[in-house]
Amino acid sequence: MKLSIKDLVNVARGAAFLGTGGGGDPYIGRMLSVSAIQEYGMPEIIEPEDLDDEATVFTIAMLGAPTVLSEKGASGEDVDLAIEKMEKHLGKKADALMPIEIGGVNSMLPIMAAARRNLPLVNADGMGRAFPEIQMVTFNVYGVTCTPAVITDEHLNSLIIETGTSAKRAEDLVRVSSIEMGCSVIMSSYTMTGKQVKDFGVHGTLTMALEIGRAIEKGRKEGEPVEELARYLRTTPFYNQCKVIFDGKITDLRREVTNGFTMGHCLLSALDGSDRTLEVVFQNEFLIAKEDGVVRAIVPDLVCMVDRETAEPIPVDSLKYGQRIKVLGVSAAPIMRTKESLAVFGPQAFGLDEKFTPIENL
Amino acid sequence: MKLSIKDLVNVARGAAFLGTGGGGDPYIGRMLSVSAIQEYGMPEIIEPEDLDDEATVFTIAMLGAPTVLSEKGASGEDVDLAIEKMEKHLGKKADALMPIEIGGVNSMLPIMAAARRNLPLVNADGMGRAFPEIQMVTFNVYGVTCTPAVITDEHLNSLIIETGTSAKRAEDLVRVSSIEMGCSVIMSSYTMTGKQVKDFGVHGTLTMALEIGRAIEKGRKEGEPVEELARYLRTTPFYNQCKVIFDGKITDLRREVTNGFTMGHCLLSALDGSDRTLEVVFQNEFLIAKEDGVVRAIVPDLVCMVDRETAEPIPVDSLKYGQRIKVLGVSAAPIMRTKESLAVFGPQAFGLDEKFTPIENL
Repeated sequence: MKLSIKDLVNVARGAAFLGTGGGGDPYIGRMLSVSAIQEYGMPEIIEPEDLDDEATVFTIAMLGAPTVLSEKGASGEDVDLAIEKMEKHLGKKADALMPIEIGGVNSMLPIMAAARRNLPLVNADGMGRAFPEIQMVTFNVYGVTCTPAVITDEHLNSLIIETGTSAKRAEDLVRVSSIEMGCSVIMSSYTMTGKQVKDFGVHGTLTMALEIGRAIEKGRKEGEPVEELARYLRTTPFYNQCKVIFDGKITDLRREVTNGFTMGHCLLSALDGSDRTLEVVFQNEFLIAKEDGVVRAIVPDLVCMVDRETAEPIPVDSLKYGQRIKVLGVSAAPIMRTKESLAVFGPQAFGLDEKFTPIENL
Repeated sequence: MKLSIKDLVNVARGAAFLGTGGGGDPYIGRMLSVSAIQEYGMPEIIEPEDLDDEATVFTIAMLGAPTVLSEKGASGEDVDLAIEKMEKHLGKKADALMPIEIGGVNSMLPIMAAARRNLPLVNADGMGRAFPEIQMVTFNVYGVTCTPAVITDEHLNSLIIETGTSAKRAEDLVRVSSIEMGCSVIMSSYTMTGKQVKDFGVHGTLTMALEIGRAIEKGRKEGEPVEELARYLRTTPFYNQCKVIFDGKITDLRREVTNGFTMGHCLLSALDGSDRTLEVVFQNEFLIAKEDGVVRAIVPDLVCMVDRETAEPIPVDSLKYGQRIKVLGVSAAPIMRTKESLAVFGPQAFGLDEKFTPIENL
């Protein structure tokens, strides 16, 4: 299938929702991809099933501090360089590209990259959401090695990182390098086979981002955007456990940038006249929502905050005192909830004390 | 020529002297090279003139915090990996290896590497001394690109860094990566041709380190080690401007580790009964010696501190209150004193206010 330029608006909005507060601003990514598409044409979107088992697939992403990502963007040459360096290093060409995460800017950057490289883009990713660290993907959980990882910056400096089987070691090296390279870099990593994409990818997430954006757009026309969004999610293969868990306004907000992450929490008070309160804790992404101390939704399930009137997804950076918000809890893909996956990006990976409980059981 | 195992003791001592207080502990390097030589045989030492103009030469070095270098050493596999990765990345084999700096541990590590790889080692380096940062070499001054640079660690993680023509950019990236990799890494960089080694290398420094060590040994037998050392230096092609600028004991010492460097200064009071004092400022290496405010020796000329009785070179890390020391000022190679070189590693590169004046004019 092919997206239209107009579709990108909805993909970006859907990706912002799936970004659960983090993942960088997809609207900036949209600008980048639109100009790439105008120059190189719209890339083909293919399904994991369309890949040969032996096909070579690279992930491509931006990585760094969200605020800087938005300001610096990507020149395109840095994207080309990352892919070219990887191809030269491996001694083989990419047959397709794929997002590493669908949430946020990394839904869009691969569209730009695929357009520039004239490669198909796979309708799948390694999260079905956004996460702050590069080991936090299904590919890593199920044995695809993160490295070689190629990092490039806007001055066309490059790094090829190899850390054997340790994706966490790669994360540490990528992180310090990206900070030194100006807090925003392009990364190609997790090169894998078509078979691995089929087995370990979270399928269909690019088109689901598009449909989420469309549902919000449709809901706005009909006057019920949050409800329309929830209605659509319930029809999807795995985002279908979806609850509007709170309707409130922000009465307290603590947010600070620590070790390159935006950390903090916000408190919401109910708008229904009751004295109910919801606390949402974040590390780039919203991690857990607790109502008067009781868990309502917890990572890797999605905690999403949207404007209560327009359903516009609200990133952590844009939270404001007094803002009126609906909070949704949404089920993650089954592969994201396995014991193996929870060991890598369950609540304990973020230092939370609470155990993971699926949203449908809360 | 071939060194003997016994020669390594003297090379290490001479390299400690040329390390001007820094460069890491060559005695640890000697242990590593001795065991490599016992396993693989002593490598051939060749002169720059023996190289074909088109020959491919790699530098090889350890890099990191001196204290950690001494504790961790190098496994040998990390050295092999750095060279193999470079050869694969460039698509050509090394014809010879070369030290990047002769001062300190990096005189010895290349002997180990050459033994393991069965490659000749070039009797030259890029400083004729030690310096704390990787752009501070004649190769960089005269247009040999620092990168690709390959970094490896003891867990066999690796990084290939490319920063175009900016060696300072490479330094910044290498530095943060080496800290993340445990403050001690192996680096191969500054790949160059035989012609470039001939034109931009500081020649003969490995054998001069050997002869410096021998002079100290001979002087000890004859009861005048510092004098014998100075006598030998005056016969060399460029270390020949050599002055014993102070004979004193340490009466004040400030030393701290900042940004990965050992920074500080020490004060010496004269032992001749006068009230003369000498201040020596260091950043890993001794940079400047001032007697009552008047410059006596200044970087890139060598400021060396040795035990006043045994002429044993004293590294910054081993300075102690009350220690009795002779301080020598020694001329650097002419290529190290050009306008171009001074711009890269003259006094201003270290934040000093004083202008460079050759030791012979002070």
